[in-house]
Amino acid sequence: MTGIADVAALAGVSKATASRALSGSGYVSSAARERVLDAVDRLGYVPASNAVGLATGRTRAVGVIIPYVHRWFFAAVLEGIQQVFLDSGDDLLLYNAMPGSVGRALIFDDFLARKRFDGLVAVGLEPDDAELARLGALERPVVSVVGEAGPDVIAIDDVAAVTIAFEHLRALGHERIAFLGGGDPSRHWARVDRRRLEAFQALMRDAGLESAARHVPSAVDVAGGFAAATRLLTAPGPRPTAIIGTCDEVAIGAALAARGLGLSVPGDVSLVGIDDHELAVTFGLTTVKQSPFEQGARAARVMLERIAGRESLIEGPAECGLVLRTSTGPA
Amino acid sequence: MTGIADVAALAGVSKATASRALSGSGYVSSAARERVLDAVDRLGYVPASNAVGLATGRTRAVGVIIPYVHRWFFAAVLEGIQQVFLDSGDDLLLYNAMPGSVGRALIFDDFLARKRFDGLVAVGLEPDDAELARLGALERPVVSVVGEAGPDVIAIDDVAAVTIAFEHLRALGHERIAFLGGGDPSRHWARVDRRRLEAFQALMRDAGLESAARHVPSAVDVAGGFAAATRLLTAPGPRPTAIIGTCDEVAIGAALAARGLGLSVPGDVSLVGIDDHELAVTFGLTTVKQSPFEQGARAARVMLERIAGRESLIEGPAECGLVLRTSTGPA
Repeated sequence: MTGIADVAALAGVSKATASRALSGSGYVSSAARERVLDAVDRLGYVPASNAVGLATGRTRAVGVIIPYVHRWFFAAVLEGIQQVFLDSGDDLLLYNAMPGSVGRALIFDDFLARKRFDGLVAVGLEPDDAELARLGALERPVVSVVGEAGPDVIAIDDVAAVTIAFEHLRALGHERIAFLGGGDPSRHWARVDRRRLEAFQALMRDAGLESAARHVPSAVDVAGGFAAATRLLTAPGPRPTAIIGTCDEVAIGAALAARGLGLSVPGDVSLVGIDDHELAVTFGLTTVKQSPFEQGARAARVMLERIAGRESLIEGPAECGLVLRTSTGPA
Repeated sequence: MTGIADVAALAGVSKATASRALSGSGYVSSAARERVLDAVDRLGYVPASNAVGLATGRTRAVGVIIPYVHRWFFAAVLEGIQQVFLDSGDDLLLYNAMPGSVGRALIFDDFLARKRFDGLVAVGLEPDDAELARLGALERPVVSVVGEAGPDVIAIDDVAAVTIAFEHLRALGHERIAFLGGGDPSRHWARVDRRRLEAFQALMRDAGLESAARHVPSAVDVAGGFAAATRLLTAPGPRPTAIIGTCDEVAIGAALAARGLGLSVPGDVSLVGIDDHELAVTFGLTTVKQSPFEQGARAARVMLERIAGRESLIEGPAECGLVLRTSTGPA
C-alpha cells in the first residue's frame, strides 16, 4: 500500500512537508504543495484523514447548524461560511435543523454528540433551553450569525437598521407609517422580527406619531407581505403613506399588493425594506442593505480564531446602510 | 476514560448493541437506542467516530457537491438530500463548487481526494473533462440530481416538460409563442437550458409554426427574464401572444416586464414556466411543476443503495406536471 513516504519521495520533499501539505496545517510553499498533490494523484494515495484526526485531536471539519437552506439570507450566509473554510482546508458538515422537525431533534440528540467537528457555526438559531444545554455540552466553540446560540454573534444592529429606514421616511415628510412583520411568535425569525417591530414602535412614539403608526403582522416572505399589505391598504380610515417591511421579501410582497390595487409606488405609498435581497433591484426597492455572505465569512473567520484558541473580541455589529432606489418618495 | 463498555453497562445492553446504536448501522430497538443515548449523556461519553471509520472502512458521511446554494432549485434539493441522511444517520459534507471559482478548484484538487465520505451526490453539476476524471478516480458511488457527473441521474425529462407547456398553449389557440432562456452557454444550467430551447424549437417546427417562433436569450433568474421579456415585448412586428420561460424565475421576470409595459396577463400575453417556484403562487403563474426536494431525497435514497453495494436501477425520470393558475388564457 502506498504511504506518505512514497508521496514525499516522489514529490522530493520531506515526509513532514508532505504531511503538512495534505493536512492543510502549517506552512508549505505552493510549489511544494503542488508537487505533493501531483504525487498523490500519480500514486493514487489516499490520505487516512481519520487517522490524522486521531493523532492530532483535530477533525479538520466545522459544523454548520442552520434552520433553513432555501431562504435568501440563510443560503447566502452558508456560501460565505463555505468560502472561508475552503480556503482554510476545513470540511463543512451541514446540519439543516428546521424548527419543530424530527431532523432537528436527531441533530441535537445524536449528530452533534458525535463531535465530528472542531467547532459549530450556528446560523439564525433561536434554541430552546434543552438545545442550548446540548450546545454547551459540546465543549467546542460555537459562533453565531444572528440568533442566540452563544456569546459570539455576528449580526446587524436591528434597532439601527429600523432607525435608518424610519429616518429616511421622516426626511421625506412621512407621518402615517406602517410596519409589516412581527408576525407569528412561534415562527422562525420571531425574535429578530419582534426587535424590529419594537424599534419601529419606539421611534414612532418618540416622534410623537404613536397614533399615526400602523402594524399588520406578516409572515416573513413575499406571500406574507402581499397578504399583510393587501389588508393594510384596503382597511378603512386614512391610508398610510409609507410602509417599512421587516425584510425585503415582505416589502416586495407589499409592492405587488400595491400594484394589484392600482396604487402607485412611491406616488401613493413609499416602501422600504431591510436586506438588499437579490430581487430588490428588479423592484427598485429602497432598502437597508446588509451582506449575509460577508456575515457568514466573518463568523467562519472568528471560528478559525476560536479553534486556534484565540479569544479575540468580535468588533461591533455587522454593517448595514441605506440603498436608495425608486420605491420611496415625498409624502 | 469512559468507554463503550461503561455505556453498555449503564444502558443494560450488550457492547455490540451499544455500538450499533451509536454507529447507526444494524438493527437496534428504539427503546434500547434511547437507553444508550441516555447513558452517553450521563457519562459524557464521546464516541470515537474516527476510530469507527478506521475499523469499518465506512466514514458514515456523504458528500454533496453543488454549484450554488442560494438558488431555489439547489437549496430545495439540498434540503431533500439532508432529510434522508438525517434519517440514515449519515453526516453531510457540503462542497459549494461555484463554476469558475477558486473554491471549486480546491474542492476537485484537494477536498474530494481526502475521501472523507462513502459516496458523493452531485447536484446540477456540469463537469469538464478534468473534473469528470477526478470523480472517476474517487472510487466512490456518485449519484446526480440533474447534471452529467455519472450514469445515475435523477431529473425531469426536459423535452417532456417543454412539451407539456407547449401543448397547453396550443390547446388555448396560441401560435405566436416565444421562448425565454437558452442564454449564455458559459453559464450554469447551460445544458439543461439548451435542451429546453431545442425542444421548443422542434415542437414549433413540427407544428408548422417555425416562422411564428421567437427566442430571446435570458439569464436564468428574475432579472434575466425581466430584461429578455422587455426586449421581446417592445420589438417591432407582431407581438407574441404567449411566452414559455425556461424556468419560473424567468417567467416571473416576464410577468413583471409585462405589467411594467401596461400589458395584461393573460389578456395580452400568456405566461407559463417550469418549476413551481415558491413565488409562482403569488404571481398566479401557470407552470410545469417539479419537486427538487423530492429529487434530492430520491438521489439520497439511491446513494444509500449504492453504498450498501446494491445496483438497483433508477426507475424513470422525476415527475413533472401542469399546474394551472391565472397567467394563461385563450389566444
